[in-house]
Amino acid sequence: MILKFPTIQDLRQLALLTQLQCKLNNLTKPPSSLGQLEILAQQIGLILQTESPLLQNPQLVVFAGDHGLAKHRISAYPSDVTWQMVENFLSGGAAVSVLARQHLIALTVVDCGVRHDFKPQSGLRICKIADGTADALTQPAMSTEQCERAIANGQDLIKTLPGNVLLLGEMGIGNTSAASLLLARLGGLSIEQCVGAGTGLDQGGIQRKTKILQQVLQLHAYASKPLQALAAFGGFEIATMVGAILEATANNRVIVVDGFITGAAVLVATRLEPLVLQRCVFAHRSAERGHALLLEQLGAQPLLDLQLRLGEGSGAALAWPLLVSACSLLTQMASFTSAGVSQASA
Amino acid sequence: MILKFPTIQDLRQLALLTQLQCKLNNLTKPPSSLGQLEILAQQIGLILQTESPLLQNPQLVVFAGDHGLAKHRISAYPSDVTWQMVENFLSGGAAVSVLARQHLIALTVVDCGVRHDFKPQSGLRICKIADGTADALTQPAMSTEQCERAIANGQDLIKTLPGNVLLLGEMGIGNTSAASLLLARLGGLSIEQCVGAGTGLDQGGIQRKTKILQQVLQLHAYASKPLQALAAFGGFEIATMVGAILEATANNRVIVVDGFITGAAVLVATRLEPLVLQRCVFAHRSAERGHALLLEQLGAQPLLDLQLRLGEGSGAALAWPLLVSACSLLTQMASFTSAGVSQASA
Repeated sequence: MILKFPTIQDLRQLALLTQLQCKLNNLTKPPSSLGQLEILAQQIGLILQTESPLLQNPQLVVFAGDHGLAKHRISAYPSDVTWQMVENFLSGGAAVSVLARQHLIALTVVDCGVRHDFKPQSGLRICKIADGTADALTQPAMSTEQCERAIANGQDLIKTLPGNVLLLGEMGIGNTSAASLLLARLGGLSIEQCVGAGTGLDQGGIQRKTKILQQVLQLHAYASKPLQALAAFGGFEIATMVGAILEATANNRVIVVDGFITGAAVLVATRLEPLVLQRCVFAHRSAERGHALLLEQLGAQPLLDLQLRLGEGSGAALAWPLLVSACSLLTQMASFTSAGVSQASA
Repeated sequence: MILKFPTIQDLRQLALLTQLQCKLNNLTKPPSSLGQLEILAQQIGLILQTESPLLQNPQLVVFAGDHGLAKHRISAYPSDVTWQMVENFLSGGAAVSVLARQHLIALTVVDCGVRHDFKPQSGLRICKIADGTADALTQPAMSTEQCERAIANGQDLIKTLPGNVLLLGEMGIGNTSAASLLLARLGGLSIEQCVGAGTGLDQGGIQRKTKILQQVLQLHAYASKPLQALAAFGGFEIATMVGAILEATANNRVIVVDGFITGAAVLVATRLEPLVLQRCVFAHRSAERGHALLLEQLGAQPLLDLQLRLGEGSGAALAWPLLVSACSLLTQMASFTSAGVSQASA
């Protein structure tokens, strides 16, 4: 057994954690009676390095990209839906648009590699690597250079966004396939366990998708390291998201993770920088098969379990008020002393 | 087998349900991909009798009362905490105060029978039956007349409140005991299954509480009907809540049920008027033992599962934005046609 001496940073974190715990215990409620929200309040306090955390200017970013693999009918929807939905996000009619409006969350859509030329418009950022990834059934979805460029794009993007919270969203017909491939390879799981209905395949469709993904895995048997796997399986939106996650981690932002695809990006990012996990709040457990396994791999306890399987960042937006509540309870509730409330008898 | 002909009302409900389902399927998302929120949107549409539901002026009511049984140390906290917490609700320092403020929910506290004389103040209603219930270990917690008066108080109260949503909250040291007794008797369950730690009893405390509640059940073996059980076990806050639930049901309000104690009031109310269940949205599954069983009895699928065990209506307030989201998604999302998005391939 190797004993590791704690660093000054470790000791500071421990001291802050103790302060947060004391503060929570003095609030007018039975100890721990706010359950998971108390754990959440502590986590946010640790990320923002304060016992009075205030979430500011939340940014929901929808990373969009197309997938060469989609031509093999691994999705119930055609690839064109990716760009059509980007327009829908921007014009305010998509689920995530409605939810962001409800909660006053800023919404940015990023073209990471959509097969479409968008007109410049408010709320849209162009960080396009190419018109969709290559077909992973015949070659790597992206080159090493493309993969690195996408990651750098994500890092640069975050540098331009204000606030201390990043909510992750995504759009890309075919991207549950990329997420399943990443989970299978990096998690050491069989592809059968990792494949689900995506946007709505039937049983036959899922079987066909599984068979194709099995072939993709075999073709790229060499791709065992995180960046190799990311380049082999794609997509551009996942790689750009990895960069965004790494940058948000570096500047101590709270990262709200949506569902299966954003979770796969977190899986890659956490293999590159273990500190990522400490920054992540997992919004929900999706109905997409594989997501429960992915959450297990990450040791994550999500806030919601509403059988959502939409993506876009919709689950992250739905969980958002719970993060605000956790902070408000911590900072605005009265203590037993200040409110003159009797404590529990010994 | 008796065939029952559907009434005009049944057919209208069925037609509306079909309209709601069609509307949801035409929104720009894979069918059912918003999971439980789609079911919730349909339920709210049916309650408010419209395919474009709008939740207005939500009212969170905290029903407070004291319990004669509390003198047997069935709670970790002294009875005085009931009135002290009422003051804390009103001065804005309690968890439910913070959450109501966050979500712009109107908060009303009702003295249904607290052992304290409150000064008149904004946000407080006095509907006091007595200074706490009688000791159910020696006599019924309330007389039939007191029980009926409390129910009438609840009905009258709702008549004075605006809006189309009632969120239920409660406060009363000892009231997990009353809820456990009601669940055991009306649900036909053993008291051991229904008793938990309440505000924070240890294992020995739970055993003592269980033994006392077993004696109470034996003393009132006659009390098998809902109103008999309610009078025998109390409390005033639960009886007043039963009246409020019945009245809210009668005027087609959405009722947001919090945790174990508000759930027990719903259990009583639904035995008096089965339509109650159709109006109820269950906010969360509490960590209090017995609540999962109670939800099963009611066939209820709660929205949140955050290991909360605070009461006050805190869970109802936390779930509130999900109800708003369900309605906003239904009424504000674009359809495939309006947004020009391709549908799934057959």
